Amino acid sequence: MLHLCPNPATFRAPAMYRTHSCHQLRPADIGQSVTLAGWVNTNRDQGGVIFVDLRDREGVTQIVFRSEENADATVHAHKLRSEDVIQITGKVAARLPGTENAKLATGAIEIIATDLKVLNKADVPPFPLDDPKVNEDLRLEYRYLDLRTDHMQRNLKLRHRIVKATRDYLDDAGFLEIETPVLSNPTPEGARDFLVPSRLNPGTFYALPQAPQQYKQLLQVAGLEKYFQIARCFRDEDLRADRQPEFTQIDVEASFITDVEIQTLIEGMLKRIFKEARGVDIPTPFPRMTYADAMNRFGSDKPDLRFGLELVDLADIFKESGFKVFRSVADSGGVIKALNAKGAAALLSKEQLKKWEEWVKTEFGAKGLAYIKWSEGGEWESPIVKFFSDAEKKALAERMGFAAGDVLFFGADMKLEAVAEVLGRVRLRCADILGLLAAKKDELNFLWVVDFPLLAFSPEDNHWVAVHHPFTRPKAEDMPALEAGEYAKVRAVAYDVVLNGVELGGGSIRIHEKDLQTKMFEVLGVGPEEQQLKFAHLLRAFSFGAPPHGGIALGLDRLVMLAVGAESIREVIAFPKNNRGCDLMTHSPVEVDFKQLREVYISSTAKKN
Amino acid sequence: MLHLCPNPATFRAPAMYRTHSCHQLRPADIGQSVTLAGWVNTNRDQGGVIFVDLRDREGVTQIVFRSEENADATVHAHKLRSEDVIQITGKVAARLPGTENAKLATGAIEIIATDLKVLNKADVPPFPLDDPKVNEDLRLEYRYLDLRTDHMQRNLKLRHRIVKATRDYLDDAGFLEIETPVLSNPTPEGARDFLVPSRLNPGTFYALPQAPQQYKQLLQVAGLEKYFQIARCFRDEDLRADRQPEFTQIDVEASFITDVEIQTLIEGMLKRIFKEARGVDIPTPFPRMTYADAMNRFGSDKPDLRFGLELVDLADIFKESGFKVFRSVADSGGVIKALNAKGAAALLSKEQLKKWEEWVKTEFGAKGLAYIKWSEGGEWESPIVKFFSDAEKKALAERMGFAAGDVLFFGADMKLEAVAEVLGRVRLRCADILGLLAAKKDELNFLWVVDFPLLAFSPEDNHWVAVHHPFTRPKAEDMPALEAGEYAKVRAVAYDVVLNGVELGGGSIRIHEKDLQTKMFEVLGVGPEEQQLKFAHLLRAFSFGAPPHGGIALGLDRLVMLAVGAESIREVIAFPKNNRGCDLMTHSPVEVDFKQLREVYISSTAKKN
Repeated sequence: MLHLCPNPATFRAPAMYRTHSCHQLRPADIGQSVTLAGWVNTNRDQGGVIFVDLRDREGVTQIVFRSEENADATVHAHKLRSEDVIQITGKVAARLPGTENAKLATGAIEIIATDLKVLNKADVPPFPLDDPKVNEDLRLEYRYLDLRTDHMQRNLKLRHRIVKATRDYLDDAGFLEIETPVLSNPTPEGARDFLVPSRLNPGTFYALPQAPQQYKQLLQVAGLEKYFQIARCFRDEDLRADRQPEFTQIDVEASFITDVEIQTLIEGMLKRIFKEARGVDIPTPFPRMTYADAMNRFGSDKPDLRFGLELVDLADIFKESGFKVFRSVADSGGVIKALNAKGAAALLSKEQLKKWEEWVKTEFGAKGLAYIKWSEGGEWESPIVKFFSDAEKKALAERMGFAAGDVLFFGADMKLEAVAEVLGRVRLRCADILGLLAAKKDELNFLWVVDFPLLAFSPEDNHWVAVHHPFTRPKAEDMPALEAGEYAKVRAVAYDVVLNGVELGGGSIRIHEKDLQTKMFEVLGVGPEEQQLKFAHLLRAFSFGAPPHGGIALGLDRLVMLAVGAESIREVIAFPKNNRGCDLMTHSPVEVDFKQLREVYISSTAKKN
Repeated sequence: MLHLCPNPATFRAPAMYRTHSCHQLRPADIGQSVTLAGWVNTNRDQGGVIFVDLRDREGVTQIVFRSEENADATVHAHKLRSEDVIQITGKVAARLPGTENAKLATGAIEIIATDLKVLNKADVPPFPLDDPKVNEDLRLEYRYLDLRTDHMQRNLKLRHRIVKATRDYLDDAGFLEIETPVLSNPTPEGARDFLVPSRLNPGTFYALPQAPQQYKQLLQVAGLEKYFQIARCFRDEDLRADRQPEFTQIDVEASFITDVEIQTLIEGMLKRIFKEARGVDIPTPFPRMTYADAMNRFGSDKPDLRFGLELVDLADIFKESGFKVFRSVADSGGVIKALNAKGAAALLSKEQLKKWEEWVKTEFGAKGLAYIKWSEGGEWESPIVKFFSDAEKKALAERMGFAAGDVLFFGADMKLEAVAEVLGRVRLRCADILGLLAAKKDELNFLWVVDFPLLAFSPEDNHWVAVHHPFTRPKAEDMPALEAGEYAKVRAVAYDVVLNGVELGGGSIRIHEKDLQTKMFEVLGVGPEEQQLKFAHLLRAFSFGAPPHGGIALGLDRLVMLAVGAESIREVIAFPKNNRGCDLMTHSPVEVDFKQLREVYISSTAKKN
């Protein structure tokens, strides 16, 4: 027999830190002896009696120090400062009648402290924790303090709950979470990759994955059938607005599955997530809208359907117009659309309309923004209306339901996408100033956008590129068009899920046949040599019994942001980077010794300051 | 009102791929019309009737094609090859009496196929999927085929179940999973980092985390109290044996917690994991052993306690020995130990003992391996015994329980660690040849090793280094020794959890006081400037109310390997790299265009072949 230290209890530390959390005690516990630990939220002296609000992750409890109980502790309690870390022991007591705090779960009781232990002192924080107006850079530099706020604690707790609900749901549905490599290969035709030099293979590089796309497809070839992963992904993009160089996605792929089955699966998942995060039951199935409809009616492939403000076709009205711009577009089969911002006339002065015009010019490179404003009791004000015939005006007013108080905005271009780009954004701005968004702040409007185009012609590259990615499946009924080279007509079995005008995620049924995949590469101008170099393993895998498969990926950070009602993804990420990719708390990234670089066979070409 | 495509059902694909899995149908389903999809496992022609074993992720079902039902399908079924992907429709029928397959869950039924659809043809695989002797490089190159084997499917399913059980358990215990950055800072005093050049910050680099150590401590300062993460970690080491450049760890950290509370938490977690993976109830609490005991008695800080073969102290016996090596060590307060390999004499020839000696010389740089072999009916055979006095021999035999048939192995050195290194490994080899390991193959022997030394003197660096890491807390009772500069005497509040001689993980209670952390840096030779450069944010965080905290990390890959009974971590990782850090399937890492390097301000210094 081996002789071991017989009783683990002999290793027990002399004390435990607490018997209860600061959210736990209730009148039923009165009389009990308890130990609590946490941070000093506030302390105040009322005639020699010290009241400390003690805070931990779960809540707040009022602690009372009186000289009768412990004179020494009371003296020390008087000196406590906010954010000091303490441990107290005492008896649970009822608060004096009239001093209960109904807002606090523990508000009916207090602890009469008999003992105080200061575990760690705190300096005065560089900013008041509960001030929402503190500069974000300062909050990011002291992120560990910022994370103590109710707001951030709530967000991170809800993020955990959402991710747990997601995993539970997918596990229930028979999906296996499988980890794929972070040290992987460059993404062909993706955004810019982050590179990692290899020390064991001089002159070569790993890339951090932009998505586990190929691995998840290979897991289908491997017969795992139902895969998911809450996967960290990376894109080295210029960080505009609300982007992060690393982000997390809910990555799902399955075999022997149809597009509608995937959509139904994801609807159920979102139902569970929003139940968990908000306690609401979102109705399913979500409505479906084709890409063509979304673009035509709302000027967006992720339309916000909480309000109308639909775009209306006008090309037929202006076929013989005196307004040359419209006539030439209408004549050549182009697109003329308008939307009616009902009741916006009083909200938009001439100066403001001028600013809107400037905005569409700089933001979208548009030539201008045609409008007609009709103030109550006034005339049509517009730089273009003088070119319209009476018949055109009548037809326009009728079709648009144009009335006094309204403003019409126009878009005209040979390409729908160009009209949609401008009017889609003008639509959102109109909704904003009309208060339509504020009125529907709490509405959750889900939508599937389907039937995306498979291919788009890229004038810069002078060839067709994949709208989604090169592995996306063409719709069966559009295969003849693909064969015939009528690429613009080919739709993909691809779908995006949209919430309140924000794209939550997208996916597609994939190509699983080697021949079709090879054909697709040819269409995309990927020659045999490049195929061999970048896709040999995938094409080879497809020749050994690849099942039909498809999937979807949802951006977790954005989903959590919307689910918890945060303003930015930085509010749902524990340690986000700023828009230069820097972590202000740890000062990452940093310079490293040239010897470290030499070890991985690279040198820096950056100019020294 | 918005007009949307009214009924999602109109988007439904024309067919679903299957109504049941290949593991699902039973005699109760006889007569039902079903559709199945999967891979052809085998097909055979019995007098014109074709029997196909159809396989999917869940199991196998026998499909029967007969000309009476569908002549055309039967002709095609005849031509099917292994790994072809098919969809079949047919009726569930009872197998003929005597042809049932009791080994198969679906073995009492078969499907009489009325329809066959070949979804994808398969080329002949480059190796037979069920041959365990296939070269690993080939299996890794065609990993998507290797993953189709029962063995790998089982491992990945169990890995998923284990990870799910871990998350469920920690969630139940109130822990929040919080993601920390992958693009982070170099690890001070760690292994070699993987570097990622920053494009937005020329000349600077991110490092991939070796562990989320500082982030998890900062989350404690942030008041999140109970954190965990199944975290991807990275180490750019030379890949010996069973290592991977990226690995996954169960990372746990909590505030207001004692070492024993953490250990109890982890015991519960392992209990749940082994219940899930093996259906066994492992007894808790685990025994505890101090580092000093483990080294003294078993020559290892992760002793395998499934067998004895303890090391025994002999220094007092050889204080005046004629054998100079022993005498001088014993005289100077050094360590002399031996272990008795009971019954090993018949298993170890003189040549084999010679080989063992060679092995300890090359592997550990030992000067030799002293032994005494006592064959049944023979004399003591040994190069050293001639120097021993009769009294020494008697004392030795008595203390070691030395008998005919046994072999004694000796170690002598001024340092315990040197003796332990050799005899610890000799002990394992003895257990192996004596069949002690084989006999206890299925035993799960868990152990906590505690009271590790805090510091070790590094002759190369000529200063003291942290045994665990610089944030580890000294034991309260050893604080006087730390103050007095008696660093060798200071023990850490650090603990490792060991299973069958394999370290599953380790952790510690951390330093949470700025002053003590600064003192520790001084002891470790980290001057004020370096502290400022590398640890400023941590030291600053400690000054704003850091709670007492501690944690642990367990290597997930190794844990899963042991739980499922795999031989290598590569068998529980979907896409592992080989021992040169290469993914043989995707040929990662790769050369990249110099323009891509220029964009991130680096150039390659590798010599071109």
